[in-house]
Amino acid sequence: MPTSTMQALRKMRPERGAAIEKISIPEIGPTDVLVRVRAASICGTDLHIYGWDPWSASRIHPPLTFGHEFCGVIERIGSEVERLKPGEFVSAEMHVNCGHCRQCRVGQPHVCQNLKIIGIDQNGCFAEFVCIPARNIWKIDPAIPEHYAAILDPLGNAVHTVLSGEIAGQTVAVTGCGPIGLMAIAVAKACGCDTIFATEVNPHRRAMALQMGADEALDPTSPDLLDRVRAGTGGSGVDVLLEMSGHPSAIRQGFQMLRAGGRASLLGIPSQPVTLDLLGDVIFKGATVHGIFGRRMFETWVQMTALLKAHKLNLEPLFGERMPLDRFEDAFRLLEGGLAGKVLFIPGNGSR
Amino acid sequence: MPTSTMQALRKMRPERGAAIEKISIPEIGPTDVLVRVRAASICGTDLHIYGWDPWSASRIHPPLTFGHEFCGVIERIGSEVERLKPGEFVSAEMHVNCGHCRQCRVGQPHVCQNLKIIGIDQNGCFAEFVCIPARNIWKIDPAIPEHYAAILDPLGNAVHTVLSGEIAGQTVAVTGCGPIGLMAIAVAKACGCDTIFATEVNPHRRAMALQMGADEALDPTSPDLLDRVRAGTGGSGVDVLLEMSGHPSAIRQGFQMLRAGGRASLLGIPSQPVTLDLLGDVIFKGATVHGIFGRRMFETWVQMTALLKAHKLNLEPLFGERMPLDRFEDAFRLLEGGLAGKVLFIPGNGSR
Amino acid sequence: MPTSTMQALRKMRPERGAAIEKISIPEIGPTDVLVRVRAASICGTDLHIYGWDPWSASRIHPPLTFGHEFCGVIERIGSEVERLKPGEFVSAEMHVNCGHCRQCRVGQPHVCQNLKIIGIDQNGCFAEFVCIPARNIWKIDPAIPEHYAAILDPLGNAVHTVLSGEIAGQTVAVTGCGPIGLMAIAVAKACGCDTIFATEVNPHRRAMALQMGADEALDPTSPDLLDRVRAGTGGSGVDVLLEMSGHPSAIRQGFQMLRAGGRASLLGIPSQPVTLDLLGDVIFKGATVHGIFGRRMFETWVQMTALLKAHKLNLEPLFGERMPLDRFEDAFRLLEGGLAGKVLFIPGNGSR
Amino acid sequence: MPTSTMQALRKMRPERGAAIEKISIPEIGPTDVLVRVRAASICGTDLHIYGWDPWSASRIHPPLTFGHEFCGVIERIGSEVERLKPGEFVSAEMHVNCGHCRQCRVGQPHVCQNLKIIGIDQNGCFAEFVCIPARNIWKIDPAIPEHYAAILDPLGNAVHTVLSGEIAGQTVAVTGCGPIGLMAIAVAKACGCDTIFATEVNPHRRAMALQMGADEALDPTSPDLLDRVRAGTGGSGVDVLLEMSGHPSAIRQGFQMLRAGGRASLLGIPSQPVTLDLLGDVIFKGATVHGIFGRRMFETWVQMTALLKAHKLNLEPLFGERMPLDRFEDAFRLLEGGLAGKVLFIPGNGSR
Repeated sequence: MPTSTMQALRKMRPERGAAIEKISIPEIGPTDVLVRVRAASICGTDLHIYGWDPWSASRIHPPLTFGHEFCGVIERIGSEVERLKPGEFVSAEMHVNCGHCRQCRVGQPHVCQNLKIIGIDQNGCFAEFVCIPARNIWKIDPAIPEHYAAILDPLGNAVHTVLSGEIAGQTVAVTGCGPIGLMAIAVAKACGCDTIFATEVNPHRRAMALQMGADEALDPTSPDLLDRVRAGTGGSGVDVLLEMSGHPSAIRQGFQMLRAGGRASLLGIPSQPVTLDLLGDVIFKGATVHGIFGRRMFETWVQMTALLKAHKLNLEPLFGERMPLDRFEDAFRLLEGGLAGKVLFIPGNGSR
Repeated sequence: MPTSTMQALRKMRPERGAAIEKISIPEIGPTDVLVRVRAASICGTDLHIYGWDPWSASRIHPPLTFGHEFCGVIERIGSEVERLKPGEFVSAEMHVNCGHCRQCRVGQPHVCQNLKIIGIDQNGCFAEFVCIPARNIWKIDPAIPEHYAAILDPLGNAVHTVLSGEIAGQTVAVTGCGPIGLMAIAVAKACGCDTIFATEVNPHRRAMALQMGADEALDPTSPDLLDRVRAGTGGSGVDVLLEMSGHPSAIRQGFQMLRAGGRASLLGIPSQPVTLDLLGDVIFKGATVHGIFGRRMFETWVQMTALLKAHKLNLEPLFGERMPLDRFEDAFRLLEGGLAGKVLFIPGNGSR
Repeated sequence: MPTSTMQALRKMRPERGAAIEKISIPEIGPTDVLVRVRAASICGTDLHIYGWDPWSASRIHPPLTFGHEFCGVIERIGSEVERLKPGEFVSAEMHVNCGHCRQCRVGQPHVCQNLKIIGIDQNGCFAEFVCIPARNIWKIDPAIPEHYAAILDPLGNAVHTVLSGEIAGQTVAVTGCGPIGLMAIAVAKACGCDTIFATEVNPHRRAMALQMGADEALDPTSPDLLDRVRAGTGGSGVDVLLEMSGHPSAIRQGFQMLRAGGRASLLGIPSQPVTLDLLGDVIFKGATVHGIFGRRMFETWVQMTALLKAHKLNLEPLFGERMPLDRFEDAFRLLEGGLAGKVLFIPGNGSR
Repeated sequence: MPTSTMQALRKMRPERGAAIEKISIPEIGPTDVLVRVRAASICGTDLHIYGWDPWSASRIHPPLTFGHEFCGVIERIGSEVERLKPGEFVSAEMHVNCGHCRQCRVGQPHVCQNLKIIGIDQNGCFAEFVCIPARNIWKIDPAIPEHYAAILDPLGNAVHTVLSGEIAGQTVAVTGCGPIGLMAIAVAKACGCDTIFATEVNPHRRAMALQMGADEALDPTSPDLLDRVRAGTGGSGVDVLLEMSGHPSAIRQGFQMLRAGGRASLLGIPSQPVTLDLLGDVIFKGATVHGIFGRRMFETWVQMTALLKAHKLNLEPLFGERMPLDRFEDAFRLLEGGLAGKVLFIPGNGSR
């Protein structure tokens, strides 16, 4: 039985930083679930919020408990909740859709017009407890280990990107080998793709790309990059581009690697408008481009669960340190340094 | 029975202009067909070749008979040709694919790696006769009038663009109301779309857009344009963008009109790289973008024939003057002036 | 303000027949809406319930107010209902999905594992008022006339069937020209299909098929039927089969009419197992077969609304008599006779 | 340099049996290729031809060299053949499409209206040499071993069946574990599927199913089969049915295992019409059924090559004995006994 207060990592003021606060455990409504957080993972977005970049300043309203990647155990359920019960091990889709708009009505709730994100628009999971609408809860298959269960949100981004079109038997370029790019390599391989060409400026990450299953890990500044991709694809270029970097030059290079008639799925987040050779790289190529946001609700969760259950994905190389919430300064320092893998917070770990 | 020479409109030198020449009727190979041209239509590309812009200078090797939109009657067939015979009324897909490359092998011959275009890479149809590979010939259903049969190439562009995704019951924006944009309006309506918002700077073309079936024809410089589109779509924006202008600002405005989860099909040809809000307009929207080139071979021809046979498309407003080949200077002058509709050449009309 | 009781047409006992009863106006829960019925339409399923066939005996638990096609005006909303308000003109999706099962989670709520149908599994719309979950309500566009709004359920079946695959430019066979088959003809034409071959034993319905837009209305017992379909499709057979009869021989004949590589969408309800030439008609043909149930939630409603708003569908020939609830014996007698079109009940018409 | 005659295994008369004959090496036309056969594999169809069942009697016109699964080396090319040269290691798509019919024109050449099959409608590969149209030749990636290259035809059937819809993350039932069923298990696993339930009456084949990657190999006569499949799929049934047996009862059982909204791909060849619960198993389920014939030309070949190159498929357990052509009686005896795996003929092996 929980006491009435809990520890939470919160953005208190519109400026760089965060603070551990003692706050009330969330009240839940009739269709909500209270989850005791076992592990929470830090997203690139959390770094932006911590650092207070222009996007954060425009979107975040302190005080706010942030964090949106986690797993935990159901503590309490609302009066109207069915099919869930205390003690179940769960994660959650943190994008909460309205159910009313055009997109919600035609099977695209992941791009809901009125989307709210837990950990951005309302209190998130960097805390001992988090309140989640019951329909956003995802029960974790017991075959899935806890640390994997804490990163289903970014893994779902990777699965959504890879499976937004055909992948079996397709040649692939992955531009950008941050955590989600690396996951995408593993997912594409697990789904039967042909050769993967990964591009990444950081040599450590190129090494990880090979470890995750890439066939070639290339430096995007190498002058013969396009030649190597063409040589490895019978001259045509790759069937599928998975753009995971958000860098304008990587995006352009990705499109150059793409064969005519190919598919480009764009997940990386550019920080400014991007200039493209729209004629040569999209129109005359007859390319298909998919903007990727969030996870399909809940097709992506089904696919991801199946891949994890079958032990198709070895994500161990992606994990970094684990630490309690109050070591958050160390955590963000490590991540801002760029080499830390997925750092996990273990909230309230004294109580277990 | 043809004599051995014919009249042709040819690009003779790498500079602005063209000339009527007397040349040999083309020899045909064993798998080719010789077609007597009854009507040929002038494409925007032909204007570029006539005016000798940088693209023409890089692609065209004079002397060349240009022209790639036409209909005619089979005059002679090669020794290996089956299922075609002299006297049949035909048009042709002027994009000739190689049959060997990755795209050709996976059902995307329209974006063949080694594509040759008749009228650009080899002699075209601004002549009394044109030589066409038999497998590129399309027999014309007798229900289709001759002047319509002369513009199946651009009509096919419109059909390909509209039908590259779902259209029935979808709200639509058409950006750019040149001939192909106007055709796209008629095609989308014939296929059961919801409201069409057309944008176009030229008021004459806006009037034509309404005539072809657009529900609203808007000036893209109007400050309340986005508000009107949102008001007419329950606040979400349109389901489908058909980009027919190639203008960077129209492309950007088109993407702004598109709802999250929508489909953008891009046919218009930008003359330079385009700067897009890739994050807001494609990635976070979860949009699907299709680059459109040529016509599906031959799905588009099947669809186009069905729509024409059923008298679903009234294209009469699109037609301008008809004239013999030797009045080509008048023809290009009219078209460069911008208001002439589709001008048809009637080659060798003295002989009929 | 309603009184506390209302008139309802109810199945009272497990036997043929029904009765008008005076019952309480339904109580609504916090997420429900009470709708005052303006017009209700009689479905084939209602005839089965009235006649008490084996299916009804196995599924229906009297006493029950039946009826599931209707339109009306919102009378009252539950405490948690947003975006709906009394006075709005609405219809509803009467299939209520659970939201939890695999199908609900992957975008296929129309085939929910735990589906409940209002008017079959709980009290329906043959009454002055009906209780509907708010998320199943569909607001009616003001451009749609009331009698059309009363038949959106079966029209949605037709739209779902036609649009379960490509239709623009496709040749079509419709087997069975009851009300939904006739609607399917109109929908397919409105969406740009090529030639429609309709088959139907009843000459009156064949005449209606032509009126709705079929190009040929054929007697399925005619010995040259397949020859005519092949002659009208260049020898290949039709691209699309819309099976609306449920009769085993019509189903088999439909598959014979289908070309190799074609699409068969099956909506008609066979009353017993069906013997098919699965090898010749499906496997070696490389055919795609879609079982069709209900309406996509809510893609079908979006498409249907667009077609109706644009006045693309003339359904007037489908309507038969309108009568108050207490003339139900006349209504069922007419429909069991087979020629009555869609009969509408106008409940509580004295009060308007 | 070949002599003018060769050894071939031929059907000489309309009756059971076959004979080794000395015949002329095939003449090739200008667009053909002559291939020296290195290994040929025996298909179930070859058993039918050998045994002279009713299907063979209706389709085969002796004398005929049969056989249609093979690999070999190009010996000679026709005068018009490009991009192929003597000495290249190849296999071939033995289904020769016309290029003219509706299906050929809309991207479905594998179900061509006028299809000819080499080894059935014209002389096949149970010989030292076989003549193949150049466009049907498939070059073998050097990473693929010769015995695998000899069975690309049936492996392609398996790949086509598995990849005719989504497979990553999907639960699967495979009904029938003959060679192609077993291959399908390996392919589905290589493409990231979830749990596979295989059904098969033969215990030896059930053991092989597990070896190829099935999660459960079930006896179709077991009374709790459906319960086990439902228990293993959260109660819903499988997402995908791959029907590889052709047995009516297996087909029906397969459909019972399929969840509502699922996909059934049917490759197995029933020898007679099949009675289905079309209402319960297809229509009310909203199922999608794909008839599968041959291989997509050449999407399937691209996918298969990629899976083999990446060593994703271990097919070793499927191979049986290898023998020269003149031991054909032993070969057919083994196969008719039912346990022999894929038997390979090594024609002309004395000459290598």
